[in-house]
Amino acid sequence: MADFQLNILGCGSATPSLRHIPTCQVVDFRNKLMMIDCGEGAQLAMRRMRLKFSRLTNIFISHLHGDHCLGLPGLLSTLALQEVGGTVTIHTFADGAEILGKVFDFFCREHSFNLEFNIIKPERAIIYEDKAMTVETFPLYHRVPCTGFIFREKPKLRHIIRDMVDAYNVPIAQMQALKEGADFITDDGRVIENSRLTTAASPSISYAYCSDTLYDPRVAEAVKGVDVIYHEATYIEADAEKAHQRGHATATEAARVAVEAGAKMLVLGHYSKSYLNEDTHLAEARAYADAHGRSDMQIFLANEGLSLDLTTCR
Amino acid sequence: MADFQLNILGCGSATPSLRHIPTCQVVDFRNKLMMIDCGEGAQLAMRRMRLKFSRLTNIFISHLHGDHCLGLPGLLSTLALQEVGGTVTIHTFADGAEILGKVFDFFCREHSFNLEFNIIKPERAIIYEDKAMTVETFPLYHRVPCTGFIFREKPKLRHIIRDMVDAYNVPIAQMQALKEGADFITDDGRVIENSRLTTAASPSISYAYCSDTLYDPRVAEAVKGVDVIYHEATYIEADAEKAHQRGHATATEAARVAVEAGAKMLVLGHYSKSYLNEDTHLAEARAYADAHGRSDMQIFLANEGLSLDLTTCR
Repeated sequence: MADFQLNILGCGSATPSLRHIPTCQVVDFRNKLMMIDCGEGAQLAMRRMRLKFSRLTNIFISHLHGDHCLGLPGLLSTLALQEVGGTVTIHTFADGAEILGKVFDFFCREHSFNLEFNIIKPERAIIYEDKAMTVETFPLYHRVPCTGFIFREKPKLRHIIRDMVDAYNVPIAQMQALKEGADFITDDGRVIENSRLTTAASPSISYAYCSDTLYDPRVAEAVKGVDVIYHEATYIEADAEKAHQRGHATATEAARVAVEAGAKMLVLGHYSKSYLNEDTHLAEARAYADAHGRSDMQIFLANEGLSLDLTTCR
Repeated sequence: MADFQLNILGCGSATPSLRHIPTCQVVDFRNKLMMIDCGEGAQLAMRRMRLKFSRLTNIFISHLHGDHCLGLPGLLSTLALQEVGGTVTIHTFADGAEILGKVFDFFCREHSFNLEFNIIKPERAIIYEDKAMTVETFPLYHRVPCTGFIFREKPKLRHIIRDMVDAYNVPIAQMQALKEGADFITDDGRVIENSRLTTAASPSISYAYCSDTLYDPRVAEAVKGVDVIYHEATYIEADAEKAHQRGHATATEAARVAVEAGAKMLVLGHYSKSYLNEDTHLAEARAYADAHGRSDMQIFLANEGLSLDLTTCR
C-alpha cells in the first residue's frame, strides 16, 4: 500500500446512475483513511475497494448537496453496527453538522465509536493537522457555499547515511536531530555538516480536491503548486452554458485550473449523467494542457474503483 | 406487465454487502408503484429494474432501523431533482415522519412533487385504500416497534358474457350493475339471473410483508388466507438462538408462518451477511412445508432483481 493513495469511490453527479454513483473519494494516507464527500453508496464502494471501516478517521464534506453527503446516514449506521471503536470526525458546515447530528442520534442510538463534528467554513484555513499532514479549506464558487480541500504531506525527515553516522560514532540520541537537519559536533568539537551525514528528505506530496465549482482564477491561485488536482468536469465545452448556469465547470476549464496552478497530475470527475462516456472530457482537457505547454501533465478520468498512487508524482 | 408484480430490490439485513443490499421491495400494482421499506441503494435498484420514479406513489416503512429506511434521503433527493410531479406518501411511525421530514426539508429545498406523511402504528388497521386495493398494518415482534403490511386487491367485477347480453338487449347503462352481480329485468318483467349473463370475477390476490420479526403465532393469524407471504428468514435453524436474541426468525419459522396461514407462495429474505449463500434457508423452508403436507407451496429465495408475477397465484 502506497503512502498516499487516492481512491475514487464515486464520480457521478446529482443522482446515481447505472454508470456512476455520486461523489466520494478516500485518501489513504499512511494507513489512515480520510473520506472526501460521501454520496449514497459510499459504504458499499468502501467494501468493494476493500477499504476497512476501522481505518476511517475523518470525513470532509465540501457542501451540502445530497450527491455529496447522503451516503453518510448509511455509513454512520454501519459504523455503529460494526463496533469499530475510535473517533470519526466529520468536517462540515454548521447547518450540515446540525442535521447530520440529528440523523445520527436517531438512527445510531447504540454505537461504540465517537462521532465528532468540526465546523468549517468556505474560506482559507487549516482545519486538520496531525504529525504528518495538514488539510486546508479554500472557497469554491458553486450555487451554495462550497469548499475545496488541500491535503498536504508535511516536510519529511532527511535520510541517515548509515555508514557515515557509524564512522563518526553518532550516538542514537542524536539521530532525530540529524534527520531534522542539524549538524553533528564530535567529542573533540569538530562540526560535521548535516549534508555529509544525511541525504535529502523525500519530497512531500499535496492533493487538492475542487468540486463543485465554476471556473475561477481564485481556485487556481488557491491550489497553486499542489502536485495533484481533482477538479470537477461536470460538462464538456459544448455544454458550457448549462455548466455555468448550474455553477459547474467544463473539462477544459478543469484543465485550465490545473495548468494555471502548475499541477503534475489532473483527475477529472463529477460527470453529468447526460454523457454516454467521458472520452470527450479527457480529450478536451488533454488538448488544453498540450496547447499550453503541459503535455507532461498526467490527466486521468475518475472512475469507480480507480486507485491512484500519488507518490508517483514526487 | 402483470397486474400485481412483486419486485425485490434488496434482501439483505443490517448493512449492505457485496451480495445483498438492505431491504426494499416494490409492488407494481396496475401501473402504480408501492415501495415497501427503503434501504440504502433503493433508488439505484429502481433504475436497474427499470421501475420509473414517476410511477412511485406510496412508500411503506415497517420500522425505523437504518437498513429499512436509509435509502429514503437519497431517493427523495432524486425525486426532487427529477421533477416527477404528483404526490408521494410515506407511511411511517410518528418519530420516523419527524426525522425524515427534517431531512427532506434540508436536502430537498426545491422540488416539484408533494411529499406527504401518513402516520401509522404497529396495530391492525387499514392505512391505505384506493378503488382497487387496500393496505393493512399488523404488529410484528421485533426489538423496536415494527409493522407488517397486507396488500389486498379488492373484489373484482364479474365478466360480461357478450352473446347473452346481446341476446337480451341489455342496455349499456345496465352493464356496471351486471358486473357488480345484479340480475337483469327485461321490458316485459322477466328476471334474468346474473349468473346467465356473467361469469365469475377473477379471484383477488393478497400479499403480506413480514419483516423484521420473531416467529409468533399472532403473525400467522394476522396473515391467514393471504395468497403470498414474504417472511424474513435472517437465520437458519442452526443459528436459532442468535435469531431470537436479535428479534429475528429462521427460515424454518418463516415456513411455519406460511403453513399456518395457508399461503400459496412464500418468499424468504432479509438474510444475515454471515451466510455464503441461502441454499440452507431454502432447503429448511421446503422441508418444513413438505413435512406439513404443503409440498404444493411455492417457495422462493428473494434476490436482488427478482420479479414475481403474483397473479400466477390466482
